[in-house]
Amino acid sequence: MKKPAKSKTSRNSQTPKTSTQQSRTKISPLHNRLGILGGGQLARMLALKAHDMGIPVSVLSESESDPAALVVKDWHQGRLDDAKTLKAFIDTCTVVTFESEFLNAELLAEISRGEDKIFPRPEIMKLVQDRLTQKHLLEKNKLPTAPYFEIATIDDARSAFAEFDGELVFKKRRFGYDGYGTFVVRSEKELKAFLPRIAEEKTGFIAEKFIPFKRELAVMVSRSRSGDAIVFPFVETKQENARCLWIKGPLKTNKTFVAIADSLKRFAKAIDYVGSMGVEFFETQQGLLINELAPRVHNSGHYSLDALTLDQFSAHVRSVFGMSLSAPQPLGGGFAMLNLLGSSTSEPEWTQSPDVRLHWYGKADNRAGRKMGHINAVARTADEALDKLLRVRKDFKV
Amino acid sequence: MKKPAKSKTSRNSQTPKTSTQQSRTKISPLHNRLGILGGGQLARMLALKAHDMGIPVSVLSESESDPAALVVKDWHQGRLDDAKTLKAFIDTCTVVTFESEFLNAELLAEISRGEDKIFPRPEIMKLVQDRLTQKHLLEKNKLPTAPYFEIATIDDARSAFAEFDGELVFKKRRFGYDGYGTFVVRSEKELKAFLPRIAEEKTGFIAEKFIPFKRELAVMVSRSRSGDAIVFPFVETKQENARCLWIKGPLKTNKTFVAIADSLKRFAKAIDYVGSMGVEFFETQQGLLINELAPRVHNSGHYSLDALTLDQFSAHVRSVFGMSLSAPQPLGGGFAMLNLLGSSTSEPEWTQSPDVRLHWYGKADNRAGRKMGHINAVARTADEALDKLLRVRKDFKV
Repeated sequence: MKKPAKSKTSRNSQTPKTSTQQSRTKISPLHNRLGILGGGQLARMLALKAHDMGIPVSVLSESESDPAALVVKDWHQGRLDDAKTLKAFIDTCTVVTFESEFLNAELLAEISRGEDKIFPRPEIMKLVQDRLTQKHLLEKNKLPTAPYFEIATIDDARSAFAEFDGELVFKKRRFGYDGYGTFVVRSEKELKAFLPRIAEEKTGFIAEKFIPFKRELAVMVSRSRSGDAIVFPFVETKQENARCLWIKGPLKTNKTFVAIADSLKRFAKAIDYVGSMGVEFFETQQGLLINELAPRVHNSGHYSLDALTLDQFSAHVRSVFGMSLSAPQPLGGGFAMLNLLGSSTSEPEWTQSPDVRLHWYGKADNRAGRKMGHINAVARTADEALDKLLRVRKDFKV
Repeated sequence: MKKPAKSKTSRNSQTPKTSTQQSRTKISPLHNRLGILGGGQLARMLALKAHDMGIPVSVLSESESDPAALVVKDWHQGRLDDAKTLKAFIDTCTVVTFESEFLNAELLAEISRGEDKIFPRPEIMKLVQDRLTQKHLLEKNKLPTAPYFEIATIDDARSAFAEFDGELVFKKRRFGYDGYGTFVVRSEKELKAFLPRIAEEKTGFIAEKFIPFKRELAVMVSRSRSGDAIVFPFVETKQENARCLWIKGPLKTNKTFVAIADSLKRFAKAIDYVGSMGVEFFETQQGLLINELAPRVHNSGHYSLDALTLDQFSAHVRSVFGMSLSAPQPLGGGFAMLNLLGSSTSEPEWTQSPDVRLHWYGKADNRAGRKMGHINAVARTADEALDKLLRVRKDFKV
């Protein structure tokens, strides 16, 4: 079990050495092509916003019924873990991005070696997709996060249980998402039930101290190859069964938010980050603690499509092409976003088609818990906007 | 020469007899498909907004490099005047719309006979595409427009010249656009130069009294199959050489605007209009006179993409599918839209990629006067927004 010692983290850090183009990029729109790895709703919304700006888009995904495959002319069928497929696809694009950080980062780095073409860079993806190296990255950049231990053995787990006073969370180091791979342990019995998983899981775990939180918050950060970096408003996110139900904002700014926003901009610069990035927080008695980084556009930023002067998808596209960025301004006093999660396998139906900003992903099959779309509202206050969305929710039968 | 007598117009009116579905349409998003006739920028922006709402889109156009062909999966190559091509295309769609009113309206009516499927309906397209029947339509619905005469012979033209005190405008009845087919006559010499055109032009002319105007204004109207009708803010449009350079708004509302907005809603209901419609005005000493109707989304409404709670393209898509509409609200004190018109045949370049809302159409070739894209801004006032756009205009080399 490695101790969470700040002095030790620097030797674990693997910040990439590539450097940002500090000058504004000239763009000849006809001769650019954005490649997107993956075909889900995030890829779809990226494609739509790139098209808004006249940028041609290619998508690589497995099924022709994928949400993003339905909205581009140039769709390529293929697996995202196949070197030959990836190389052929990337070769046809000017710049390539992705909608999931759980790709084979080493393969992507290998394929694009010598070319600064995939953003966010595969080196960053690699650091973030492993919860342990993500923790190192946060610590090194003085970003607040819950105390943790690396867990490789049963002994590590027992020591962590003792150190954290019998209240902790074990998280798979890799490929955990939406609650999958997360185990809350608050008794000897729960510990015992968890221990056999350590041997089963090749890539290991981390253990975090279980810290009760008041609310979950989130914020988006975008940084362009031009060097411009912006932070979006802080929002409250409501999770249930590890799914985001809704978000509302903007949260009234305060010293903590300003300080964290500054740290996040410094962080993005220090690791030469390019693109939009989602940051999730727990609001605790010890202040804001970062729960997770997502090196991509993020569900908690979907509200920005209708609530701000700049949305996270356009900001991402502008970033990867080196276009300028300026801080997004709210268009109303408050805003909210409600996920339309499947609750059946019946075909969805909009029974009243109410007059809210609807973003529907065109997924071929409805199923329980699946993100089928979202609705956005702007109003005088965040609560007013959320109330409006909750009122019309019933008109979308999913 | 027919006199412009209000009492005579009713027998010329050909308002279609079809009726709007007054109930809200249930939508099963997977089983709907919007067909768009034409592949230009209007079709492109319609497709992007339909995709936002998860509605699958098919486009029929001539070239695979057409702006709209580049942003849909389901593009069909073909001519819009070929019955077989049109029928095959329309059969694959739930609802069909178009980006130009200069299609063969009779052919479209014939192909869709018995099906209420093309919106705005071909019968309306037919009335509007002929300046004479458009005048009849306006008069019948008590909408203000300049006095006119029908011109079929040289004698008609001479009489009109005398009646209008030697200051008049001859306009081709059909297929005139952007100033093409319009002849200002203010002297005997100019009249003499114009007269031979009457015999050359099979479809005839109208003559309008030349009325000096202070400004040109425009407004968008949308009406859904659900029965909901909305009027967008009035805006000022700046034209040069019959091209729109920019628009700004919203114009401060007044009794005239309110009265005209009410008339336009009544008009849309009376003719059972479905979709968005552009209305252009001259502001004269005699009040606002309608210069032209466009039964489609319109350049003067592009600002709405970024300046209002609802844009004209989404409103059009919502309308043709029978979804509800509520009045769009401005997101700031003022807004402006600047067309990026080609000024060379060089490849366009964005030299600074300034931080304004850019809508680029992806046209294969630049050329002088061609609409290549537009930029939108929102600010405290319309003039501030326009100033911002004029300042950054130089950063787009087109």
